[in-house]
Amino acid sequence: MMELYDDERIDNLLADASIKIIQSPSVFSFSLDAVLLANFTNVPVKRGAILDLCTGNGAIPLLLSKRTNATITGVEIQERIVGMARRNVAMNDLTCQINLIHGDLKEMGAVLGHSGFDVVTCNPPYFRTPSAREQNHNDYLTIARHEVLCTLEDVVQACKLHAKPGGKVAMVHRPGRLVDIITLFRKYRLEPKRLRFVYPRDGKEANMLLIEAARDGKADLKILPPLYIYQADGSYSKEAEEIIYG
Amino acid sequence: MMELYDDERIDNLLADASIKIIQSPSVFSFSLDAVLLANFTNVPVKRGAILDLCTGNGAIPLLLSKRTNATITGVEIQERIVGMARRNVAMNDLTCQINLIHGDLKEMGAVLGHSGFDVVTCNPPYFRTPSAREQNHNDYLTIARHEVLCTLEDVVQACKLHAKPGGKVAMVHRPGRLVDIITLFRKYRLEPKRLRFVYPRDGKEANMLLIEAARDGKADLKILPPLYIYQADGSYSKEAEEIIYG
Repeated sequence: MMELYDDERIDNLLADASIKIIQSPSVFSFSLDAVLLANFTNVPVKRGAILDLCTGNGAIPLLLSKRTNATITGVEIQERIVGMARRNVAMNDLTCQINLIHGDLKEMGAVLGHSGFDVVTCNPPYFRTPSAREQNHNDYLTIARHEVLCTLEDVVQACKLHAKPGGKVAMVHRPGRLVDIITLFRKYRLEPKRLRFVYPRDGKEANMLLIEAARDGKADLKILPPLYIYQADGSYSKEAEEIIYG
Repeated sequence: MMELYDDERIDNLLADASIKIIQSPSVFSFSLDAVLLANFTNVPVKRGAILDLCTGNGAIPLLLSKRTNATITGVEIQERIVGMARRNVAMNDLTCQINLIHGDLKEMGAVLGHSGFDVVTCNPPYFRTPSAREQNHNDYLTIARHEVLCTLEDVVQACKLHAKPGGKVAMVHRPGRLVDIITLFRKYRLEPKRLRFVYPRDGKEANMLLIEAARDGKADLKILPPLYIYQADGSYSKEAEEIIYG
């Protein structure tokens, strides 16, 4: 039996119940953002190495394992959360494919070397460091959501360090940070290749973006068709349903 | 009667025939891009000053005149084309509102001073300087479409020079240049505020982008809902029809 803390529960990561995931509303829960990023990312199918930074409870490695035989390494700075990720990997019998590292992404050069991965994914904290008043009093969630322990530039720099030349970097973020993301990607020679905006529904502004860049790639950006999450009646769009139900 | 060269004709600029425009397939014709940019741009209604760089035959000033009493200045480097623009302004009885300048946008600081405009618009050449083999043999069209006489950086620099602090800069361009546009806008302190992608139809990649920035603005970008030009049956979408038919 899997050991669970009082505040944890086991949910389905994909609605088809093929992957189970331990999460906790007060510590860390995966979000639609992770599901969309895992779906958006191009991965090598048969072999290779994938790195997931800010991996949380391991949702992205778990999801990618359905689509690839590549080894997947997840890095998470919060010990309690990396513990959840490790139990998730064990519970889904994926210890041969997924390896979790407890550590700071700014220090992974010493642990993982340079330029070792075909693909680097990241669902980073979205918000700039909050003022004391705005801070979420739950430290687990504050660290996962705010740039308390790493800035966007730290994340981009780590993506560049670990991607092979020509390797891919894929990220999910908020549209309000697009200008920061693009200028930092260029600064670190990660050339954006595919950009997709996620809209809650028709007629609304985008509330999420998915971006894939190639390390040392040449300039050639494609703006993919919009992804709508909901239809006018509040039900999932056909495409969102296919992504979420696996 | 309006004087017309042999290769020129008079068309409706808006389908409601409220604005007429002289154009020439071999010299310069306005495009949907200009119509979309004029529609996208926020303009002051009662007074103010608007500058349109790379104005061509004056389509954007003519279209904006329907929505504002601000004075509008157009700058065009090709003498034959600025001549068309001047006749267009006269033909539509807009000489009191629209002023055309024949000159190089890189030299407009001396002519127009600095920071004089509430809004600067530009539908610039889209393509990098072509190789000799690729060059369009018609010089008028080559200059209008390729970065022969001005680069994207020249255009962005001129936009920044002429916009008031807090003033708006609006541009239409190709998605493949988004990364260049955003990095140059940041370099010249033009902060992107609104970004809209234009898709030929549902399910296709974007083939045009509309971007509005504020000089010295703070970071706060909104990604507007997609604009589709055609429906599945090949007819205009409702929104495109409203824009084109005025």
